[in-house]
Amino acid sequence: MNWNPRFAQRTALMRRSTIRELLKLAAQPGIISFAAGLPPAEFFPVEEFRAATEAVLRSRPERALQYGETGGEAELRDWIAERASQPDRPMRRENVLITTGSQQALDLVGRVFLDPGDVVLVENPTYLAALTAWRPCGVEFAPLAMDEGGLLIGELDRADAPPAKLLYSVPNFQNPTGVTLQAGRRRQLVAWSRATGIPLVEDNPYGELRYEGEALPHLLDLDREGPGIGEEAGQVIHLGTFSKTLAPGLRVGWVVAPRPVIDKLTLAKQSMDLHTSTLCQHVALELARDGVLERHLPRLRAVCGGRRDVMLRALKEHMPSGVTWNRPEGGMFLFLRLPESINATTLLTAALTHGVAFVPGEDFHATGGGHNTLRLNFTGNSDERIGEGIRRLAATLAEAV
Amino acid sequence: MNWNPRFAQRTALMRRSTIRELLKLAAQPGIISFAAGLPPAEFFPVEEFRAATEAVLRSRPERALQYGETGGEAELRDWIAERASQPDRPMRRENVLITTGSQQALDLVGRVFLDPGDVVLVENPTYLAALTAWRPCGVEFAPLAMDEGGLLIGELDRADAPPAKLLYSVPNFQNPTGVTLQAGRRRQLVAWSRATGIPLVEDNPYGELRYEGEALPHLLDLDREGPGIGEEAGQVIHLGTFSKTLAPGLRVGWVVAPRPVIDKLTLAKQSMDLHTSTLCQHVALELARDGVLERHLPRLRAVCGGRRDVMLRALKEHMPSGVTWNRPEGGMFLFLRLPESINATTLLTAALTHGVAFVPGEDFHATGGGHNTLRLNFTGNSDERIGEGIRRLAATLAEAV
Repeated sequence: MNWNPRFAQRTALMRRSTIRELLKLAAQPGIISFAAGLPPAEFFPVEEFRAATEAVLRSRPERALQYGETGGEAELRDWIAERASQPDRPMRRENVLITTGSQQALDLVGRVFLDPGDVVLVENPTYLAALTAWRPCGVEFAPLAMDEGGLLIGELDRADAPPAKLLYSVPNFQNPTGVTLQAGRRRQLVAWSRATGIPLVEDNPYGELRYEGEALPHLLDLDREGPGIGEEAGQVIHLGTFSKTLAPGLRVGWVVAPRPVIDKLTLAKQSMDLHTSTLCQHVALELARDGVLERHLPRLRAVCGGRRDVMLRALKEHMPSGVTWNRPEGGMFLFLRLPESINATTLLTAALTHGVAFVPGEDFHATGGGHNTLRLNFTGNSDERIGEGIRRLAATLAEAV
Repeated sequence: MNWNPRFAQRTALMRRSTIRELLKLAAQPGIISFAAGLPPAEFFPVEEFRAATEAVLRSRPERALQYGETGGEAELRDWIAERASQPDRPMRRENVLITTGSQQALDLVGRVFLDPGDVVLVENPTYLAALTAWRPCGVEFAPLAMDEGGLLIGELDRADAPPAKLLYSVPNFQNPTGVTLQAGRRRQLVAWSRATGIPLVEDNPYGELRYEGEALPHLLDLDREGPGIGEEAGQVIHLGTFSKTLAPGLRVGWVVAPRPVIDKLTLAKQSMDLHTSTLCQHVALELARDGVLERHLPRLRAVCGGRRDVMLRALKEHMPSGVTWNRPEGGMFLFLRLPESINATTLLTAALTHGVAFVPGEDFHATGGGHNTLRLNFTGNSDERIGEGIRRLAATLAEAV
């Protein structure tokens, strides 16, 4: 049977993600892949996972294996609410929804907020899988220019900008650029959101992975500084995850937001997967509440920060002139800008024959551009492989220039 | 801020599920709940889960905790493909997608197939969460009348029926009625699907829970009997899950379907949650491949079948005349029909004051009706509580009649 005429119209708007396809390449022996955003698997706290799973299955097997509430396990929501609270502004369980990774949170936001024709403001470039999640809703993306301090606030008030439904930002160590939104701009962004009534979606997968400098306030926290902001009010939909701090295989993320938003997101999630794995939620809870997470983070930061430095040194040593990159203060990614004459997608084919992979930057640009940019993950390979991979990349570039 | 004008139009089509709301009641002490479709938690194979988790975290922690492919872990897909294969018609990994419970499979089917205005044929009554998953797509449901042998095939050729996009059926021990689709009707249904080109969505969460009689062929199997039916062809999208056989808390389900369908569903899933928990997939794989599942099923059938019998006896003993019910050959649910004068939703309020809960049948009817019907789960309570719960229900009814 010919299935094509049976598919829905929105299915034509679904695009295959380059990153996910490249994950398959990353598995091929001989390829050093800087493509996927993989945390360092050899530093997963495996023993702690075993102890936590054992504890969960001993102490509460009937809860951890049974159906649960759509919103998530109460104790985990409480733990997240407490961490999101400030002395003058407590957050409650009702402000938290547990999601199947923060990718599901992005999908939920699309499902609950976005109608065909809606405009979504995004950093340019931005996280690819936010674009792929929201594109089938029939939305238009309005890309906002960035510099080394994050999105340019002046961009928000462009006369030609149509009224937007949402603004999406990754303020800390952005994917794909590694750029961090400056503190002053964060305040301006929240003020703009209040003035215009356009909600902010703050995606924070990497916030805990800071290797230098001081942590900056979340948009969520700044939002609560204003008058009359309570658990019912507020402008910010904040997304978090255990994927980068404990393990992606858990698929446990969360949303912190005003209650009316959490209520609608929960309603949408109910028919999407009933709830996130109770087993995974309880294992995450055990690790978080027991202090394992807090003890694990310094080690993880040391490893990932060290790998960033190795990659920065290797780039400095091997890259030909005309190639530039940034020094991210945290996270998992570096962004390279090649000479205008080089197309990164074409380069990728050559790079694979040299045994190295990356993600071309073009797909992260919502409305095109960035043909000469590429994203490198620095956390998923050992120091030695990072050095070798950058040598291979440099050799590929030397041929291409 | 007033969030209401910010939500998408489809959000207005999202309805709160009575079942999920009632799960909250089920947790209140003193209430005997026949509402949710809970497997018997005290018979979860907890020791086996502990051993399996231990084995997974010892043998392949870096895979089980890392990101995985959207389609699912290869070995688990292979195991499912092999079980779905027939001697003359092998199924392959490429015919299988692992989902976050089979609820996600329903959601995926909606996302990939259903446009606003599309017609979906459903049994009447049918699984509530299929309706809630697909309603926000803006579809219309065309309910098909049933009798004790499942949906009436004559209903398919009604002159007034508009052309449909899909037909959704739960052939084994249907939710909510417990009814099983007769073998002859299965063949007729598949033949009708071939003749009209309308695909069949076969939802099979309960198939392994048969307490008497012989297993009937899946629509998937019948579909493959025809000429020229290969892994690329076929009419049936078959949904399965470990939720009723191992544990719902895993949230591991699957789709078996022709490759073009699996490809599109996988593409849609990619932006929904990247992939289902790798940890949960590996634990399920360990339990399935190691034979735990096969050894567990007879015990589970004995427990659940025994509870069915207890409920049937209690109903016979306590129900006033004018109340009728069926004898399901398997699954988790019984369906009660009350005298016309009684509204089951009104009755629920009274029942709760008597300390017993159920799900009124009305919500399972896509276009209304069934006000005097209700669904009882017989697997989630002990024999003693089943007896007591039915006594309470009878007392409630005695007051209402």
